[in-house]
Amino acid sequence: SSSMRSSLAGVSGATPTEEMNGAGNLMDFLDEPFPDVGTYEDFHTIDWLREKSRDTDRHRKITSKSKESIWELIKSLLDAWSGWVVMLLIGLLSGTLAGVIDLAVDWMTDLKEGVCLSAFWYSHEQCCWTSNETTFDDRDKCPQWQKWAELMTGHAEGAGAYVLNYFLYILWALLFSFLAVSLVRVFAPYACGSGIPEIKTILSGFIIRGYLGKWTLLIKTVTLVLAVSSGLSLGKEGPLVHVACCCGNLFCSLFSKYSKNEGKRREVLSAAAAAGVSVAFGAPIGGVLFSLEEVSYYFPLKTLWRSFFAALVAAFTLRSINPFGNSRLVLFYVEYHTPWYMAELVPFILLGVFGGLWGTLFIRANIAWCRRRKTTQLGKYPVLEVIAVTGITAVLAYPNPYTRRSTSELISELFNDCGALESSQLCDYINNPNMSRPVDDIPDRPAGPGVYTALWQLALALIFKIVITIFTFGMKIPSGLFIPSMAVGAIAGRIVGIAVEQMAYHHHDWIIFKNWCRPGADCVTPGLYAMVGAAACLGGVTRMTVSLVVIMFELTGGLEYIVPLMAAAVTSKWVADAFGKEGIYESHIQLNGYPYLDVRDEFTHRTLATDVMRPRRNDPPLAVLTQDSTTVEDVETLIKDTDYNGFPVVVSRESERLIGFVQRRDLTLAIKNARQKQDGVVSSSVVYFTEDAPQLPASNPQPLKLRRILNLSPFTVTDHTPMETVVDIFRKLGLRQCLVTRTVSWKQTLSRLSLSPQASPGHHHQEGCLAPHGSDDEPGPRIHHVQLAAEPLHSSDDVNR
Amino acid sequence: SSSMRSSLAGVSGATPTEEMNGAGNLMDFLDEPFPDVGTYEDFHTIDWLREKSRDTDRHRKITSKSKESIWELIKSLLDAWSGWVVMLLIGLLSGTLAGVIDLAVDWMTDLKEGVCLSAFWYSHEQCCWTSNETTFDDRDKCPQWQKWAELMTGHAEGAGAYVLNYFLYILWALLFSFLAVSLVRVFAPYACGSGIPEIKTILSGFIIRGYLGKWTLLIKTVTLVLAVSSGLSLGKEGPLVHVACCCGNLFCSLFSKYSKNEGKRREVLSAAAAAGVSVAFGAPIGGVLFSLEEVSYYFPLKTLWRSFFAALVAAFTLRSINPFGNSRLVLFYVEYHTPWYMAELVPFILLGVFGGLWGTLFIRANIAWCRRRKTTQLGKYPVLEVIAVTGITAVLAYPNPYTRRSTSELISELFNDCGALESSQLCDYINNPNMSRPVDDIPDRPAGPGVYTALWQLALALIFKIVITIFTFGMKIPSGLFIPSMAVGAIAGRIVGIAVEQMAYHHHDWIIFKNWCRPGADCVTPGLYAMVGAAACLGGVTRMTVSLVVIMFELTGGLEYIVPLMAAAVTSKWVADAFGKEGIYESHIQLNGYPYLDVRDEFTHRTLATDVMRPRRNDPPLAVLTQDSTTVEDVETLIKDTDYNGFPVVVSRESERLIGFVQRRDLTLAIKNARQKQDGVVSSSVVYFTEDAPQLPASNPQPLKLRRILNLSPFTVTDHTPMETVVDIFRKLGLRQCLVTRTVSWKQTLSRLSLSPQASPGHHHQEGCLAPHGSDDEPGPRIHHVQLAAEPLHSSDDVNR
Repeated sequence: SSSMRSSLAGVSGATPTEEMNGAGNLMDFLDEPFPDVGTYEDFHTIDWLREKSRDTDRHRKITSKSKESIWELIKSLLDAWSGWVVMLLIGLLSGTLAGVIDLAVDWMTDLKEGVCLSAFWYSHEQCCWTSNETTFDDRDKCPQWQKWAELMTGHAEGAGAYVLNYFLYILWALLFSFLAVSLVRVFAPYACGSGIPEIKTILSGFIIRGYLGKWTLLIKTVTLVLAVSSGLSLGKEGPLVHVACCCGNLFCSLFSKYSKNEGKRREVLSAAAAAGVSVAFGAPIGGVLFSLEEVSYYFPLKTLWRSFFAALVAAFTLRSINPFGNSRLVLFYVEYHTPWYMAELVPFILLGVFGGLWGTLFIRANIAWCRRRKTTQLGKYPVLEVIAVTGITAVLAYPNPYTRRSTSELISELFNDCGALESSQLCDYINNPNMSRPVDDIPDRPAGPGVYTALWQLALALIFKIVITIFTFGMKIPSGLFIPSMAVGAIAGRIVGIAVEQMAYHHHDWIIFKNWCRPGADCVTPGLYAMVGAAACLGGVTRMTVSLVVIMFELTGGLEYIVPLMAAAVTSKWVADAFGKEGIYESHIQLNGYPYLDVRDEFTHRTLATDVMRPRRNDPPLAVLTQDSTTVEDVETLIKDTDYNGFPVVVSRESERLIGFVQRRDLTLAIKNARQKQDGVVSSSVVYFTEDAPQLPASNPQPLKLRRILNLSPFTVTDHTPMETVVDIFRKLGLRQCLVTRTVSWKQTLSRLSLSPQASPGHHHQEGCLAPHGSDDEPGPRIHHVQLAAEPLHSSDDVNR
Repeated sequence: SSSMRSSLAGVSGATPTEEMNGAGNLMDFLDEPFPDVGTYEDFHTIDWLREKSRDTDRHRKITSKSKESIWELIKSLLDAWSGWVVMLLIGLLSGTLAGVIDLAVDWMTDLKEGVCLSAFWYSHEQCCWTSNETTFDDRDKCPQWQKWAELMTGHAEGAGAYVLNYFLYILWALLFSFLAVSLVRVFAPYACGSGIPEIKTILSGFIIRGYLGKWTLLIKTVTLVLAVSSGLSLGKEGPLVHVACCCGNLFCSLFSKYSKNEGKRREVLSAAAAAGVSVAFGAPIGGVLFSLEEVSYYFPLKTLWRSFFAALVAAFTLRSINPFGNSRLVLFYVEYHTPWYMAELVPFILLGVFGGLWGTLFIRANIAWCRRRKTTQLGKYPVLEVIAVTGITAVLAYPNPYTRRSTSELISELFNDCGALESSQLCDYINNPNMSRPVDDIPDRPAGPGVYTALWQLALALIFKIVITIFTFGMKIPSGLFIPSMAVGAIAGRIVGIAVEQMAYHHHDWIIFKNWCRPGADCVTPGLYAMVGAAACLGGVTRMTVSLVVIMFELTGGLEYIVPLMAAAVTSKWVADAFGKEGIYESHIQLNGYPYLDVRDEFTHRTLATDVMRPRRNDPPLAVLTQDSTTVEDVETLIKDTDYNGFPVVVSRESERLIGFVQRRDLTLAIKNARQKQDGVVSSSVVYFTEDAPQLPASNPQPLKLRRILNLSPFTVTDHTPMETVVDIFRKLGLRQCLVTRTVSWKQTLSRLSLSPQASPGHHHQEGCLAPHGSDDEPGPRIHHVQLAAEPLHSSDDVNR
């Protein structure tokens, strides 16, 4: 229509400064020129610079408007505060969800063994709270809590009861896991896995629509409870990060500041990830550092401060729900009474080596298994796989008391120091009859038969956990890795701890023990070894460093034990890094072929941009648009024939002087829109990007002006730029593409460069490799095209569904 | 000599890929082509991209060599470990220095009042350790410790003794401060001030030679002790960061990896800053976050991890020295016994408002005073100024017991909860005679006369501290700001705390107290108010956020009180930000005119690169070099006439096609070197930057090839790039300069752009404003020159000497 044409003319009438700002200020004077312009397609990367520039424009507009009236001022203040409101809401919701999950998991885990007669919705512990038994062991046997066999047959003991309990345990486990995998399959395929690899990818600027949606949030919350309760070797920490990010995404949609800007949205998601870890471990500072170190890509100082706020709100919401019934924020509250000694660093470092080796083994085996799942028939039966693994887990776990209970309870017991009141098997030491009173500061004692039984049961549990975790992580149910890794480390650590303790007790005249371990002194704390082992194994798998130590520090609440933790974490990281730099999350990102440019990767090859750019010498020429001689049909053919994300616009094919860059999506939308709404735009219409329409014969149809969607400040580097600098620029500025200009040589080789960050043989990006353009000797600026490979993943199955 | 010429020919014979890498790989095949190439002049900014690229080259070289022999492999491993070794050394030395400083300050502060007879090198507390008095107050009066009057006249009491003590107190204070300011003046002018503004500037990439030198380290350590002991209103925390950075710089010189690369050196310095805060407060995590949030510019994850290591080592070294004699790591160890209540958030937020107002007042008044010092006669008599302020401080401080003692002792007492054994004036409550036993959980009691005396003394102390700190910070002695700020907040907080406590006691039937403050309950902790106030005031002055809360969290060791601290810190920051975005450090950076590009500054103007670049329309043309037609004399004239840091190299003045960028310093050095060592290079020799020598008449003298120093990949943006993007690129990539190319318009306006980050009226950078070049209509690539103003500060007095 002609009204549309005049509105377009209005655009070109804007002051040059206003209009020259490229795509950034596009939204300002024509609020929605056509739908979806400036958005991104699914499975594409965002352009951080453009998002940032759009936000600056928006902010500037609000600031200048705020001087006009009180109402606008209030609106601008509300806008400034919306970030804090979102953080508050994220903290409240993720804290609440974490509390609900904790309570539900407690109850359902116990439901596998029995039920509370006084109120069926009580977990074992809650059920026995009112009991007047004092010790832990006796309290376990309170009359209100009945095992299934006792309830059904009246017999609590005996082989029959044991078999019935065993059978029901397996049945419940299978039911829970079946429900979990079915819900995931039917309602939200994205709810599976830990979610951290995908969140890392999303935060680095990739778009996966629906991954953080409301539906995923709901299903992930429900299935997480089911999966953890089923007794599988998995934890809730990673999925909680995903849940918190879903909350963040949910609240983003309340404010256009965040919902309409993919860059700003990612700031909120970074903070949400911190809140997720904060509630997972009760460690707000650790959560912020985890988000900073492990998950986030762009983490400005403002986000640091807001993440901290969200993490604190989440932690305090969780504490007021008080799911652990002890007013403690942390999952594994421990208090040790003795310091550690220098000589103990040797076993701590050995635990670090173990952690590193376990990390390497786990990553290699798990990735191999996941690759097999992707490539063979196995991947076609996810429900069957989950059922089978649950069955095996339940059958093997029940007989061993250390695997039968929930993994977090196990870790909690392993971390604990043996006080005088402790009645668990692990604390079955032979007491000195002369010991006066049951204080907490108990000297080292010889191990009783219970400890030896516990030791071999723990050894079996260790082997079981190591093997089963490899097969569990990556199944189509929500599954976190923190708890199983920590369990492996805690078991190994406790075994080593008891060994050292007994050695010190029986051989306190040995030269190494002489100085610090007199008889009657409490010199070795096996629980500390368990904690160090847990940190080492977690570090080996995830390669977390500072955040790991800080989380552990927040668990113990004292600087006292930071040195052992640090020694183990450093050793573990070094050992694991010696076998391969990538942690489990990076490995899964690579396995799934996500376009992730790891900040920590060192670019070690010595190449220049000119060596990697495409097209190469024998490829077809670079796909470009000319500023005023391409027709609509040409453009459509170009879009159809290629799958690049965008095209450089040049003065003419001969001179190839660069004037700007146009996004594929914007081009498609603009042409579609013009064809529908603008009179006279036909296939033979000329598309022009200049300010004034080209001089065309009168017979030609109405030309189409597209300067609005042209980015006049595309990012360029010279072809002599070293590739490590190019990669650095991509990382730091979050570019989507970069053009290579040749300014030195006089030979013209018009080239396209496709820079793929994950150029592994298995990745799914199509790199544009076109045939040669030849060379001519005419001088002129040269354009090459360095593009971050972010072409759509054609098979959507790759996204870990 | 001809051998030199052939060696230069050898350079051009390198493979193109190798040689095209620009300045980065220069060092590889000619180890030292001429001295100092690739280094920077004093008061210039570094090029982060170039430093990074040089480090990558170095690393690559070592890696490839390591495969050659075992010895090279060992060398490469040593190189990889050198970072950790440096961190360890920094931790050890800065921890030791902090411990020595603490001990010396303790002793010398007490020396102003008296001396220990059993051993004169004991501080008051150490002297009375062996005393058998138990309460704090009585222990103060142990017989071994004698005040000066008692020692000299034998009379401990009476007006004469008071006057003599008063006089000697002032005398000692004047002696210490005179020594401090004289040592600073004579030996190390850079040792004055807190050092944090300068360290921020250095870490952002500026070179200030000697600022982190050995001499500064020594003098700053000694004078810090003197300054703190003199009783001036200053702290040791900021200077400790400077001391730690000096340690870092010292150990950098042991490894060529760090000493020869300004970028890598700054990574070490960031970690050293963390170690400094870690020992200042005993808060390693807070230290790392302080370095990340407040001080550092480029903080990769690797540095995070290493900073944490250095901070931990430093903290543990300090703890093994145990200067506070209580095995505690932290400066102000506190333990509160009661939780806080929701209603208390109101006074906490009020304290936050007070902190914000104090921050604003302090920054404005202090900056105004410092500006006056710089611009008037006052600045010419720094020794006299210090003497005068010390005299006034001592005269006013002695009569008031809360200002007489050291500020950290004061803060410590204000933070403390009044236990049953506490005998200080602040804890003079009227005890209930029915109270059974002196437990720590003491109910609220009515205030006794001691508390009321303390209250008005504290009020006087508050006014005194507020006024004197404004005049103290910025004098020519080492002076930190953390402790005085915290003292102001702690005094205000304690006063508010006592007021709320007494109100709650006397009016526990008021509606606000009814719910949480029953009679006989311990419901208000005045010490907590002091801590919240301290956090608020520190936050108002420095604008720290997360690091502040974490430091405070590490002081108390519990998450319990994070919400009050957070509320106060957030309020304080918001209130202070409402009056001005800059904290005290940024204000001092701006006052001193350092070229610092604040990451937190928002660029709010809507301009394009084309609007700000120089030369403008009526300026002389851009100073450029041509690739093969400039003579040595031309170059020398250009260097003499301009003071730009570098020059673009173009094909010819007509086409102005950019081929690269050459640094001023490299150019000067290369020509100087060639004139000395290379035959045939005279003033009329042609300088060429191409690969092959230009075709010259035989009569011409020997041409000079300078391709070696040409950076073939200068950073370019188009003139349509929005300025906020340009600033963002400068910040994120740490550029030294950036060229603007014009590719759209056909009008040629050859321009130079000088982008000064601190374009305040008082700054000392010379911006290149040259006259117009005119315009011609010939098409061709356009070069403009965006340069971060980092010209030398001509008056070296500006650097806070």
